[in-house]
Amino acid sequence: MRNIALVIAYDGTNYHGWQCQPNAVTVEEIVREKAARILNHPVKLRAAARTDSGVHALGQVVNIHTESTIEPSGLLRGLNSLLPQDIRVMDGRDVAEDFDARYSTRSKVYIYCILNQRFNSPFLARYALHMPYSLDPVPMRDALHHVRGEHDFSAFKKKEELYKSTVRHVLRTAVSRKGHIIYVVLEATGFLRYMVRNIVGTLILVGQGRIDGGDFLDILESRRRESAGPTAPPHGLFLRRVKYGTVL
Amino acid sequence: MRNIALVIAYDGTNYHGWQCQPNAVTVEEIVREKAARILNHPVKLRAAARTDSGVHALGQVVNIHTESTIEPSGLLRGLNSLLPQDIRVMDGRDVAEDFDARYSTRSKVYIYCILNQRFNSPFLARYALHMPYSLDPVPMRDALHHVRGEHDFSAFKKKEELYKSTVRHVLRTAVSRKGHIIYVVLEATGFLRYMVRNIVGTLILVGQGRIDGGDFLDILESRRRESAGPTAPPHGLFLRRVKYGTVL
Repeated sequence: MRNIALVIAYDGTNYHGWQCQPNAVTVEEIVREKAARILNHPVKLRAAARTDSGVHALGQVVNIHTESTIEPSGLLRGLNSLLPQDIRVMDGRDVAEDFDARYSTRSKVYIYCILNQRFNSPFLARYALHMPYSLDPVPMRDALHHVRGEHDFSAFKKKEELYKSTVRHVLRTAVSRKGHIIYVVLEATGFLRYMVRNIVGTLILVGQGRIDGGDFLDILESRRRESAGPTAPPHGLFLRRVKYGTVL
Repeated sequence: MRNIALVIAYDGTNYHGWQCQPNAVTVEEIVREKAARILNHPVKLRAAARTDSGVHALGQVVNIHTESTIEPSGLLRGLNSLLPQDIRVMDGRDVAEDFDARYSTRSKVYIYCILNQRFNSPFLARYALHMPYSLDPVPMRDALHHVRGEHDFSAFKKKEELYKSTVRHVLRTAVSRKGHIIYVVLEATGFLRYMVRNIVGTLILVGQGRIDGGDFLDILESRRRESAGPTAPPHGLFLRRVKYGTVL
């Protein structure tokens, strides 16, 4: 049985997230339908991440099992000719039969974009959170250091969500300002739902000087969602990349 | 009589260009209507450039004569609260009574964006021309040098358009590649209609190796529109900036 991995980019603005659900258009549903049409059999997609409604992806990874003999390049061309312009398959290749886009991940990289200038940009309104008042990226960067390593991220989880474990391992963090855009980068072996957006929502309070790095650490250690800041909106969030061992 | 200059950015995707026309929604019409509502009198807008249908602007400049005593900052806030998300007023200030956004210009800067990678990007599809096959920016840059200075640009004008003079003065040109995007920059004291898009359409032939820099110069000197390449589509074009003397 062949196993094909695809790297998919999408503008999440018009979708109710990645994962199929009744009565809502999702990216998974669209990709699955087009892939089934080309491969000529029903298709199951395994995906690295279930991005939430409105979240974008530059490098979502999925894998598909198929008996089809189609070349990966032919599958790419075919998919991109059928898919809407806001979903593009950027790469595709044969992978080992036991490769699983979800469970074989080593880490995922998310980027959150904040446009920090007086007025919003007509070009970035769908891709960055607009914050008209001054944000200082330096204390944001220092505070974000505290999430590196293994922590219980209960303070930054989605309230109702239940997990066997709320411990996650953050490998890398970065906050940088280029022009009027502040980029918040988080790489981890796994994420809780809303984790990046809740961290960013709290980090913004630090950038505004309303709390400091010590307060941010207290919030992390409190493990109480109530102590953290609001959830940053989805449209600033991008699944940047999914890393695997040697495969992709 | 007060004279207020505004700097306007817009995503041209959903508009039939800048200038008012019957039976089509234009950026001018929208801005004029909102400005009239705030200033409480009919408004005439003088604009630096009449961008064509689908062309974007980062720094269109207009001026408005008014007797209103509103602060420029209040006018900006008011306009941005009424305008749709794809039109933003980025700056505004009182200027000399004889300042005319159209006739006081020293030069205008346009940028054309080409996405040169195999598949289009869901995020750039509306803002860059997608060219899947390899383009070499180096001969493009060298060829574009030929348009610097004063020339008769008849070869690059819109066919049916009539002018008293088709001579224009190009001050600066640049072609650069950053990642997968090729930026073509043209600064001139004035432009003929379609001039940038016709130059870019011809420059792409150079980037593909189908013609060389000498052929490009021959086309310029031929003054015949028929000898030049096709008109590049509007969605890659941005009015970047309008320069005035000391005023803006």
